[in-house]
Amino acid sequence: MATDTKQRLVHSTAGLLSKQGYSGTGVKQILAAANAPFGSLYHFFPGGKEQLGAEAIRQSGALYFQLFATIAAQAPDVETAVERFFAGAAQTLQESGYADACPIATVALEVASTNEPLREATAEVFQSWIDGAGAYFCGSGIEPESARALAFSMLSLLEGAFVFCRSMRTTEPLRAAGATAVQGVRAALAEASGTLSEA
Amino acid sequence: MATDTKQRLVHSTAGLLSKQGYSGTGVKQILAAANAPFGSLYHFFPGGKEQLGAEAIRQSGALYFQLFATIAAQAPDVETAVERFFAGAAQTLQESGYADACPIATVALEVASTNEPLREATAEVFQSWIDGAGAYFCGSGIEPESARALAFSMLSLLEGAFVFCRSMRTTEPLRAAGATAVQGVRAALAEASGTLSEA
Repeated sequence: MATDTKQRLVHSTAGLLSKQGYSGTGVKQILAAANAPFGSLYHFFPGGKEQLGAEAIRQSGALYFQLFATIAAQAPDVETAVERFFAGAAQTLQESGYADACPIATVALEVASTNEPLREATAEVFQSWIDGAGAYFCGSGIEPESARALAFSMLSLLEGAFVFCRSMRTTEPLRAAGATAVQGVRAALAEASGTLSEA
Repeated sequence: MATDTKQRLVHSTAGLLSKQGYSGTGVKQILAAANAPFGSLYHFFPGGKEQLGAEAIRQSGALYFQLFATIAAQAPDVETAVERFFAGAAQTLQESGYADACPIATVALEVASTNEPLREATAEVFQSWIDGAGAYFCGSGIEPESARALAFSMLSLLEGAFVFCRSMRTTEPLRAAGATAVQGVRAALAEASGTLSEA
């Protein structure tokens, strides 16, 4: 039961941070969303909102990468995996009224220059994504150095497109970004196999 | 003098929104940064912090696109323009201790699901960037449809790389994203001229 309350706090915080950021999320709102008593927050997280926020960032960040890993494991090849990842992101975004995008980007931008413990939590998550995507690309036959750059480009395309999609209420940016990511995968595969790719 | 105060309010707000977002920026902090008396904010902006925020978003958004337009006007070709834009962004980011990136992305993510007037202000700015960059690419010989997709991809790469750079304190994501943007320009130019591009 106690563990349930703790997990509900983390889960509710993750949802609120994702949609409205860190500064805009109050402790009372978290407790109400988690249906948790006031004392529980400081019982489980003596560091208060900041410690709970860091935990929410780490857990939702890990979960988000699992999404990519699951799609990648089921796809017949790396191009299809990237294509499906962007298509899935566009669908989720649209179905949620342009609310559900990256769980941690809003907080990452808010805290980058203002809160070092939270910045570190976001940086750890991002590093794990780059390592994970890089390893997947490597395993698909892409050169190690290109794999890392491709991971940065693919995830930058995704994060940036989320900014435009959420603001402009359209999935057009994600479709353009997804096509560019697939183009990047093709170029990296062609480079690895030493052949020329068609434009 | 009065106009000076108004402009100082907008300028200070833009700086604070860029670095710490909308929810984390208080009215007192804005007045202190602008060295402006309390009454001045509601005198110039009867709608308070929200109206001032929208004005700061519009002005800093327009200014940011001017940066791209200036670089583009001075570059010998479109590939060089895009390359210099990303290199300049990386330099500014590093010189500012990873603080100065996009002036409105943090706010755009914070308000997308929570504040309709501010969401609209960010959407207007983004629309003007896409129109402006798309027109520039068109004028450089790229097909209209590809030009618009390229504008979304280039700006998504930039915005997404900013998230990773600011969080991870490195310009590596911007370098990878810039290279992908240049690759996209080359592919679009090759498509327009009906030739094959090398990988």
